[in-house]
Amino acid sequence: MSYEAGFYDTHTHSEGRSFLELREMAERGIKKINSCAFYPVTPLYYGTLIDLFRKLMEFEVSRGSKAGLKIYPAIGIHPRCIPPKWGRVVEYMEENPPTIIGEIGLEEGSELEVEVLTSQLLLAKKLDIPCIIHTPRRNKESITEKTIEILEKLGFPETIAVIDHVSLDTVGMIHRRGYFCGLTVEEGKLSVEDTLEIVEEYEPERLMLNSDSGFSGSEYLSVANTAGHLLEKFERDVVEKVCLKNAEFFFRN
Amino acid sequence: MSYEAGFYDTHTHSEGRSFLELREMAERGIKKINSCAFYPVTPLYYGTLIDLFRKLMEFEVSRGSKAGLKIYPAIGIHPRCIPPKWGRVVEYMEENPPTIIGEIGLEEGSELEVEVLTSQLLLAKKLDIPCIIHTPRRNKESITEKTIEILEKLGFPETIAVIDHVSLDTVGMIHRRGYFCGLTVEEGKLSVEDTLEIVEEYEPERLMLNSDSGFSGSEYLSVANTAGHLLEKFERDVVEKVCLKNAEFFFRN
Repeated sequence: MSYEAGFYDTHTHSEGRSFLELREMAERGIKKINSCAFYPVTPLYYGTLIDLFRKLMEFEVSRGSKAGLKIYPAIGIHPRCIPPKWGRVVEYMEENPPTIIGEIGLEEGSELEVEVLTSQLLLAKKLDIPCIIHTPRRNKESITEKTIEILEKLGFPETIAVIDHVSLDTVGMIHRRGYFCGLTVEEGKLSVEDTLEIVEEYEPERLMLNSDSGFSGSEYLSVANTAGHLLEKFERDVVEKVCLKNAEFFFRN
Repeated sequence: MSYEAGFYDTHTHSEGRSFLELREMAERGIKKINSCAFYPVTPLYYGTLIDLFRKLMEFEVSRGSKAGLKIYPAIGIHPRCIPPKWGRVVEYMEENPPTIIGEIGLEEGSELEVEVLTSQLLLAKKLDIPCIIHTPRRNKESITEKTIEILEKLGFPETIAVIDHVSLDTVGMIHRRGYFCGLTVEEGKLSVEDTLEIVEEYEPERLMLNSDSGFSGSEYLSVANTAGHLLEKFERDVVEKVCLKNAEFFFRN
């Protein structure tokens, strides 16, 4: 399907997609994407993350532009990428404030992960920066609960927190508390049917779609494909919200 | 065309190609590729290159394997990626010797570039490691001459030096001196016709093909495509040498 207003894929790791695929995304109506910081091996040096942020902000934005895509970097320490001296990375983020903080969150919920997440949330709260907050495949419910506890303890504003990779089991507790919900449509996460079910059941104002497309798999067109299915079932303004407008509002893009 | 023995793409930056494209390369008969270290912005930290090497050696090899490709990392400091304290990177390479050193070489020929190249060539000579030596688009002839002077001054063994991205103007001086010649078939470098001309004119024993495929463009199948054209004009054993065997011999893979 085509859709002139365009779609916003709110969670990708565009580094793992080729120039041709980025161009294909643009041709299929995906006009805006977030590219979340992630390093595929745990870095031994904190500087690796700082150089990664520079790569996303300079090279990746320019690569997207040539492909016809607006790429918005999301800058942060992923729980699987915590380097030694990680505090230096947060200092860099404070000195060079990103427009989106992410992908941050808990993977296993260790003390170190909680500390790194908390430190980045405090920065986001202080500087009023929207955050993309990961939830893991394993123990999704208990880790989501733990994440929400951390947010509540900090009095973190719901309006700048999207909790991502929600499942049919976790979307309720997230939506009920006023956070935004990231719906990742890919194999092993939400199916198109799951997504239709969630959009049917919940007010669409705080839902947004993404592919989590990155270094593997074939799901880079999933937001455009899912939008097609949504349009068969819902009013156009609902689809516009879920596939574009909510994200534009949340990320201020 | 298909060709059961397979092809060897001797110079890629596979990080810039998606999983689907790596799989397509494998399906088109490209069985082995070198993935050369490169960082798209000049790193501010030497550790970024060490983590990049770890990424290539661990994550990228595994990604290739899932796609049906054998990926051989080439480890080194590219002249456009020289970080502060670059000596630490060479120390890391000495402590963790790679099986291929690359992509190294000169871009503009500055003193710093000469120093970094020399340091890596000395290590390669000491440890007997084959090297992929870049030549730039600009001032290709004069920089190639300067590169050869450095190699000769060091008494660098011709048998472990492939000088890459040769042009119709530089292939003669490289081949004549006994070095291997890397033929990069992509827009802005060699055309298929140029490649046929070089294979016609020079003994094929020291020629090898590559795509230089990476973060941009569409040339990731160029070695398979070029092999098809070569087979129309040359004996099968010539094509086997240029597209596979010479590289297997040189890189010991």
